[in-house]
Amino acid sequence: MAFVNHKFTLTSRPAGMPKRTDWSYAEETVRELHEGEVLIRILLISLDPAMRGWMNQSRSYVPPVAIGEVMRALALGQVVASRNPRFAVGKHVSGTFGVQEYFISEGKGLIDVDPGVAPLPTFLNVLGMTGMTAYFGLLETGQPQPGDTVLVSAAAGAVGAVVGQIAKIKGCRAVGIAGGANKCRYLVTDLGFDAAIDYKSENVTEALRKSCPQGINIYFDNVGGDILEAALANLARGARIVICGAISQYNNTGPIQGPRNYLSLLVSRATMKGMLVFDYADRYAQAAQEMAGWMAAGKLKSREDIVEGIETFPDTFLKLFKGENFGKLILKVGAI
Amino acid sequence: MAFVNHKFTLTSRPAGMPKRTDWSYAEETVRELHEGEVLIRILLISLDPAMRGWMNQSRSYVPPVAIGEVMRALALGQVVASRNPRFAVGKHVSGTFGVQEYFISEGKGLIDVDPGVAPLPTFLNVLGMTGMTAYFGLLETGQPQPGDTVLVSAAAGAVGAVVGQIAKIKGCRAVGIAGGANKCRYLVTDLGFDAAIDYKSENVTEALRKSCPQGINIYFDNVGGDILEAALANLARGARIVICGAISQYNNTGPIQGPRNYLSLLVSRATMKGMLVFDYADRYAQAAQEMAGWMAAGKLKSREDIVEGIETFPDTFLKLFKGENFGKLILKVGAI
Repeated sequence: MAFVNHKFTLTSRPAGMPKRTDWSYAEETVRELHEGEVLIRILLISLDPAMRGWMNQSRSYVPPVAIGEVMRALALGQVVASRNPRFAVGKHVSGTFGVQEYFISEGKGLIDVDPGVAPLPTFLNVLGMTGMTAYFGLLETGQPQPGDTVLVSAAAGAVGAVVGQIAKIKGCRAVGIAGGANKCRYLVTDLGFDAAIDYKSENVTEALRKSCPQGINIYFDNVGGDILEAALANLARGARIVICGAISQYNNTGPIQGPRNYLSLLVSRATMKGMLVFDYADRYAQAAQEMAGWMAAGKLKSREDIVEGIETFPDTFLKLFKGENFGKLILKVGAI
Repeated sequence: MAFVNHKFTLTSRPAGMPKRTDWSYAEETVRELHEGEVLIRILLISLDPAMRGWMNQSRSYVPPVAIGEVMRALALGQVVASRNPRFAVGKHVSGTFGVQEYFISEGKGLIDVDPGVAPLPTFLNVLGMTGMTAYFGLLETGQPQPGDTVLVSAAAGAVGAVVGQIAKIKGCRAVGIAGGANKCRYLVTDLGFDAAIDYKSENVTEALRKSCPQGINIYFDNVGGDILEAALANLARGARIVICGAISQYNNTGPIQGPRNYLSLLVSRATMKGMLVFDYADRYAQAAQEMAGWMAAGKLKSREDIVEGIETFPDTFLKLFKGENFGKLILKVGAI
């Protein structure tokens, strides 16, 4: 039986916002499996801001996607053919499968997915890298204490929403920054944030002064730029800034905006620390178990923004950088 | 007996590099002491980059010097009159006495100085705030481990020279950045640094690649700006950046240059942390004792750049920002 794959490969390194022509879309017949390999039909593709960084030719925590290579992406799929006894046909797995419909794996780096535990999209969201990033970034890098004021940017985004909810679970005040009244209302009403700031209609520095009168103890930064500076201007003594991402800067054609008031770190005896979820790989299973428990108890909600059709990938991906996604952005490629 | 005081008071808040006219120089007769007060004749005044920050009207860790107020400075002096039984005439003390010849104290905040332990200038250098800043900044904020590569900027300056020497005492590699061949030679030949980079004649980013082939484990930053960015570009995984100061930025008339590559913190899972020496006040005595021991053992050298005459204060102070001082800059006001 021949499988036909469709895939997006990287054609050129974008300057600024990526364009559709930075990728090419191709069809190919899937080759025969070798001994030990499994063929995965991809169902859901995780679209993440970090993917923009992987398109650049610069030193980072992983090598860049090579020109001509399939666009790198985390994904979830189902085994449809197998020459590896550890992976039976029908099994669900997640891993770095790329923006395509089929992926051949040697069986390494595959994460088991149990569809009985939660709906499949949740495994790319709260129970996947998104949730892991929020969990370890907040709990390990941020070290929250009960009563702390925890601020998170891109709070209605995938990681941000989980950070705020875990902050509440840990007895902190959660303040979120998001774009638009709808998202802000969702944070407070649906997710239980104590306050939300609409960066599109409010002066963030002033709003922070009001919503964080004792100063910010933890700032979980997903955006960088002006909002990072606003947070730096409102730190409590001993504050921790978790550097998780800087989505406002990823499509700059000029240099990144460094935080011009970083000397607030000195004034506030504060810490700014970078985190990468991959460093916690040996603790994913344990964290996912705890997160699943919080979900079952109704303390942690998972929201996905699912768009259908692999051919929409370039436009769908760009929603991330326009603030158009509401919840974890997922590209649905196969029927689930 | 009437004492005549000469003092510099702040006249205006400088924009950019301070000018002589930002202070006014005045003479006054010292008033009579009240019960509990002591009159201190100032011998040595510590000139520090932080003083520039105290001249600005902005939120910081201490209130700004008020217009009309004596310019704030740490200093060392001798009691010449006393109505406080705890401080006998002839006793040496240090404290925040200001840029003047006499200071009246209520006896609070005075630090005892024992001239038998070391030459008097040492108490404003290695055994004073300078040494304490280096000691706690490196050991507490930096957390050096044997074998670590410790980079320090303004390495021939007061704090930097001590940081590098303590790094060596703790079994680390010490690399210093300084301006000019003379200072660089001094770091390696006299102070035992493993390498020195002349920022005036070398490309610092490239020089760091060569002198820190395993990456920088600790960067003790006194300067900010381009050199902070060069350090960020050469971090080892898990690096710690100690933010002690940013002398390259203190006289900016525009905004401070924030580190444009701060996302290296993420790539390298690194930490950037601000430190203020005052937080360690309860451990000064213990640290000074350890430092005095290192000095006695010949492991820690103290170098001062002493300029005579209180009336030279404005020009002498500016040496700090022109990189003209070589060692701890001290203004000598009285015969010692």
